[in-house]
Amino acid sequence: MSSLPTRVLIREVGPRDGFQNEPEVIATADKVRLIEMLGATGLQRIEVTSFVRPDVIPQLADAGEVLSSVSLPDGVSVGVLIPNERGLERALPWRHRFQEINGFLSASETHNQKNVGRSVADSLAGLSRVFARARSEGLRCEGVISTSFGCPYEGHVPVDRVLDIAAALVDAGAVEVGFGDTTGMANPVQVRSFFGAARARLSDVELTAHFHNTRGQGLANVLAALEAGVESFESSFGELGGCPVPAGATGNIATEDLVSMLHEMGISTGIDLGVLLEASRAVQGVLGRPLGSHVLVAGPVEWGSA
Amino acid sequence: MSSLPTRVLIREVGPRDGFQNEPEVIATADKVRLIEMLGATGLQRIEVTSFVRPDVIPQLADAGEVLSSVSLPDGVSVGVLIPNERGLERALPWRHRFQEINGFLSASETHNQKNVGRSVADSLAGLSRVFARARSEGLRCEGVISTSFGCPYEGHVPVDRVLDIAAALVDAGAVEVGFGDTTGMANPVQVRSFFGAARARLSDVELTAHFHNTRGQGLANVLAALEAGVESFESSFGELGGCPVPAGATGNIATEDLVSMLHEMGISTGIDLGVLLEASRAVQGVLGRPLGSHVLVAGPVEWGSA
Repeated sequence: MSSLPTRVLIREVGPRDGFQNEPEVIATADKVRLIEMLGATGLQRIEVTSFVRPDVIPQLADAGEVLSSVSLPDGVSVGVLIPNERGLERALPWRHRFQEINGFLSASETHNQKNVGRSVADSLAGLSRVFARARSEGLRCEGVISTSFGCPYEGHVPVDRVLDIAAALVDAGAVEVGFGDTTGMANPVQVRSFFGAARARLSDVELTAHFHNTRGQGLANVLAALEAGVESFESSFGELGGCPVPAGATGNIATEDLVSMLHEMGISTGIDLGVLLEASRAVQGVLGRPLGSHVLVAGPVEWGSA
Repeated sequence: MSSLPTRVLIREVGPRDGFQNEPEVIATADKVRLIEMLGATGLQRIEVTSFVRPDVIPQLADAGEVLSSVSLPDGVSVGVLIPNERGLERALPWRHRFQEINGFLSASETHNQKNVGRSVADSLAGLSRVFARARSEGLRCEGVISTSFGCPYEGHVPVDRVLDIAAALVDAGAVEVGFGDTTGMANPVQVRSFFGAARARLSDVELTAHFHNTRGQGLANVLAALEAGVESFESSFGELGGCPVPAGATGNIATEDLVSMLHEMGISTGIDLGVLLEASRAVQGVLGRPLGSHVLVAGPVEWGSA
C-alpha cells in the first residue's frame, strides 16, 4: 500500500443520481437547501441536477430552477448530467451557473439499448456532438461508462472494449472518464487490474471510479482502486440512488462511509465529515426513511464518550 | 495483490455471536435446524453456542441441548465459546460433541473491565487455566482478542500491547488467535500493518481476522488482511450479531457477503453460496425482520436473466 494517494477528489452525485431514484418528488426548496449543505462540507465537485426529459423524470423537472437558486462557495465545481443534445440545449440558458457536464453510455450493448434505446456507436456519436458544443461553451466534460465492471445481461465486459469506449470519449473531448459499477458486479482483483490497464492506455486523462455497494463490496473496491492509483471517486450522501437492480438492493457507496474510511487511512479529502453528516441527516429527514449509510448510524470513529 | 491466498477458512459465528444478541429467545429446534443448514454449506468451522451463565444470557441457556441435538457432517469442526472455568465445567459433559473452544478477552483494560469485570491480567490467568484443562481434554483452543483495532473508551490500542496479549495466549496453549474489531474502528492501512507485525511475531500461529461492518469498511478490511497474508476469517450469516455499539449499528460482516467477494476474486472457501443463502433466508424468516446482509437482498453476481 506504499503507493496510496495522499489526497483524493470526491464528486457528490446525490442531488442528481440520488434524487432521480426517489419515487416522491422532492420540493425544489428542499433540494436547494440540501445542495447548499453539501456545498458547506468542503466538497469540490457536486453533480447538482440533470436536463433529462421532464415527462420521463418529473423529479428533475426543476433543473433550471435548482441551478439558478443554489448558492455555493467559489471552490465548488457544479456539474450537470446531460443525456443528449436536446438536454444540452435546455441546459445552456443556465450556462453561467455550472462548470462541468457529464454524458454517459454503457459498455454493454444490451444495457445501452435497454437504458437509452440506441446502440453504443450511436451514443458515442451523440456524445461527441454534445461534448463539442459544451467545450465551445467552455464547459469541462466528463464521460461516464456504465456497466464497466459487468452487465446484468451480458456479464463481465472485456476490458479492452471498455477502454476503447473510454478512448473514444477522450477523442470526443472528455478530460475525465468515470467507470461505473452499475449493478455492483465489480470485485477488488478485477478493479485493480482494470485501473492498471486504464492508466497505461489513458495516461493523460482523469480516471474516476464510481462504485455501488450492491453486494457490500463498495469500499473494498475503493481500496483496490486506490492501490491502482485512482484519486477520483463518485459517491452519494446517505447512500442514496444508484441502480435499483436487483430490486431492493443498495446503489451508490455512501459519501460519508467513503470519507470516513479515507480519513482513517490518512488520505485527505478536504471534506468535514461532521458537516457532511449534518447534510445526510437532513436528507434522511426530508425523505422520511432510514438510509443505508453506515456512518450515518454509527457516527465517525471516536472514543472516550462511549 | 500477487500474494493473495488462493483459499481461506471461514468460521461461522452466527449461532453464537449472532443469536446471543437477539432480544427474543429463539426456539432450540429452530437453532438446531439453522445450524444444520449451515453445516450443509461446506463451512468447515461453526461456533455453535456458548456456556455463559444462563441467568445472564438466557438466549444460550440451551447450549447443552443444542450441542447434543445438532447433526453435522464429519468435516465440520464444532466450536463453543467458553467464558471462564465454570463455563468449561458446564461444557465438558458434552465433550464428545465439539472439537474446539474459544476464550476471549479485550486488548483494552477499560473494555475488559466493563465487559467481564476483571483486569486483562486476571483474564489472561483465567484463560490459561481454561486452555490447560481444555487441552487435557483434547480440545483445540482459539484465543480471541476484542478491541484489537480500537476501543470505544481508550481509542487505538498499541499494536505491541495486542501482540503481547496474543503471545501470552499462545503460551497458554492457543493454536489460533482471533483479532476482533469490536466496534468497527479498523481501517485497511492499519489492518495491513497490524497483520504484517503479527505474522512477524507469531510465525507458527493461525491468525484470524474478525471484522465488523459498523462503518461499512468490513470487506475493505478483509481485502487488506488478505493482502497481509491472512487466510482465516470469522463472520456471521445474515450479518447477525456483533457488538451493538453504537446503538443501531451493524456488527459482524455477513458470511454471504464475504463468500461472494472471495469467490468473485477467485479465492475458494469450500462453501456453496446458494446453499448458504438458503440458511440466511431461513434465519431471516425465524427472526422476522430484514437483515443487514447485502447479498441476501441482491443475490450472487450473475447475469442473463435480469
